[in-house]
Amino acid sequence: MKKIINKPSDFVEESIEGLVKSHPDVYAFAPDNKRVVTRAKKASNKVGVVTGGGSGHLPVFTGYIGKGFLDACAIGSVFASPSVEQMVSAIKNADNGNGVLCVIGNYGGDVMNFEMACEMVEAEGIKTKKVIVADDIASASEEEKSKRRGIAGMIFVFKTAGAIAETGASLDDVFKLSSEVNNNIRTLGVALSPCILPEAGKPTFEIKDDEIEIGMGIHGEPGIKREKLKPANNLVDDLYKRIIKDSKLTINDNIVIMINSLGATPLEELYIISKRVNENLSNSKINNLKSYVGRYATSMEMAGMSITTLKLNDNIKKYLFANSECPFWNN
Amino acid sequence: MKKIINKPSDFVEESIEGLVKSHPDVYAFAPDNKRVVTRAKKASNKVGVVTGGGSGHLPVFTGYIGKGFLDACAIGSVFASPSVEQMVSAIKNADNGNGVLCVIGNYGGDVMNFEMACEMVEAEGIKTKKVIVADDIASASEEEKSKRRGIAGMIFVFKTAGAIAETGASLDDVFKLSSEVNNNIRTLGVALSPCILPEAGKPTFEIKDDEIEIGMGIHGEPGIKREKLKPANNLVDDLYKRIIKDSKLTINDNIVIMINSLGATPLEELYIISKRVNENLSNSKINNLKSYVGRYATSMEMAGMSITTLKLNDNIKKYLFANSECPFWNN
Repeated sequence: MKKIINKPSDFVEESIEGLVKSHPDVYAFAPDNKRVVTRAKKASNKVGVVTGGGSGHLPVFTGYIGKGFLDACAIGSVFASPSVEQMVSAIKNADNGNGVLCVIGNYGGDVMNFEMACEMVEAEGIKTKKVIVADDIASASEEEKSKRRGIAGMIFVFKTAGAIAETGASLDDVFKLSSEVNNNIRTLGVALSPCILPEAGKPTFEIKDDEIEIGMGIHGEPGIKREKLKPANNLVDDLYKRIIKDSKLTINDNIVIMINSLGATPLEELYIISKRVNENLSNSKINNLKSYVGRYATSMEMAGMSITTLKLNDNIKKYLFANSECPFWNN
Repeated sequence: MKKIINKPSDFVEESIEGLVKSHPDVYAFAPDNKRVVTRAKKASNKVGVVTGGGSGHLPVFTGYIGKGFLDACAIGSVFASPSVEQMVSAIKNADNGNGVLCVIGNYGGDVMNFEMACEMVEAEGIKTKKVIVADDIASASEEEKSKRRGIAGMIFVFKTAGAIAETGASLDDVFKLSSEVNNNIRTLGVALSPCILPEAGKPTFEIKDDEIEIGMGIHGEPGIKREKLKPANNLVDDLYKRIIKDSKLTINDNIVIMINSLGATPLEELYIISKRVNENLSNSKINNLKSYVGRYATSMEMAGMSITTLKLNDNIKKYLFANSECPFWNN
């Protein structure tokens, strides 16, 4: 296991502490819990927006705290859900009397624990709503959309929820926009190589030197199919067709795209992919207003990438492009 | 070779085309040369700032074009110098009558070709100056500082040169600030694993599963020493001592740092490193005003990282923190 770390058991604590120490103007530890990070300067008079999930996916989840983004995040161990207690702390630290929206990736433990946390804080008078992000079209059919996992598309939900909350919108309005964004995102990815869990010290899955897996989850969950590595354009065309079919994107639609590296896949490859996606969109006469290309949701050093589309309307566009202050987002 | 590419011979052209297509508001191809990229909207009434170098290092070099950054870039093949012709095109496209500063990483071919290119354009009446970036303290001793290679620290030169040029400063003043920044940067890195050149299809070097190489260059140039992988804190302390000794940074100095991934090394590890660097700086009573943590200068999917320090003065600080518009820089 070739990682620049200290004790594997300190991996999560040390990386979060490094994040906070590196950007002290953006992030702070919650006063009551070392596994909860909040904004350095607590916002007032707005709906709180929180998330939470396993470690090993930076900038997801904690990185997306900031003005116009999230208020707080509950941080689990590598690829493991945070506890109910951590989520309660995140919600309480984000609340300033206007209620809290929980944006949750659709993973069993995360959803279950957030449900319990919300019940607990509601009993104490904090109003909450939940948006369960489900953008990974490989993980369930369209008919069972609510079973889909949440992957890179969730960042668009963080961004828009954070932006509308910043304007002083009500919890209902923040929830409504976030739900709409959640309905409008589609993501499909491909894995080329596994990552290594620091504490386990071994790869999350095995894959042959000439194979890729379409639709594999960011924790190594099984995808749609395993096949031989093929040229980038053929691979992109395959993913593109599936996304367009599922999203029902059509001529004159306005969208943005995210071409996301799972970690090791370099920018050069992401841009080869982005080139083809942009050409396909041009051919389909779908208007791409912005390409987000980079490492937005990772699995440490896993090689692979995902393509996300977000269908825009005037409201989504306004909040997606609104100004924000976050080290991992370039307005 | 597990890469998401098409024909290896198209790797550079396709990745640049993807960059331009993905950010058409920022980048454009030079009208006369497909291996030269300029700003989408040419600046007027300012000194031009250009660079050039081999591909495979994104966001270096081309990515750092933008308002308050570079005006144009000559793009070589993977790990190979651009031609004199490409550099001439970059300089001419960046010039608007106020002269052009060439910021060049200290590699034989890049320096030689830029020297020829500058001679050629000077003969046509374009005034030029050159700053040869040499921040890699592993590559030559302090006495032979001018032989040092240019690595991640060059981005601080791009940023400050671009920012002062944007204000309408003279070529002499742009050159003076850039030279000062070049003198004030120190970088030291470590390589954990090689990358694979698309056309060669094989790793750039070999390194054992439990070994690292301190000071290895971003193209696999030999470093200071090869040793067993050790805990992150011990590794950071070793690099830190060498950087402080070389830079002569001392109590009450104001600096910024860059913790840069060579590609595959994930953010979690960078933050474990950044934590220790920040702690060491605190102990040394050196004031770190900002930590830049991410993938700023890479070698595709190479694993490893580098630590850069930049000593500030009021002038450097002003231009480093000045606003800019570039997809790879968060002000």
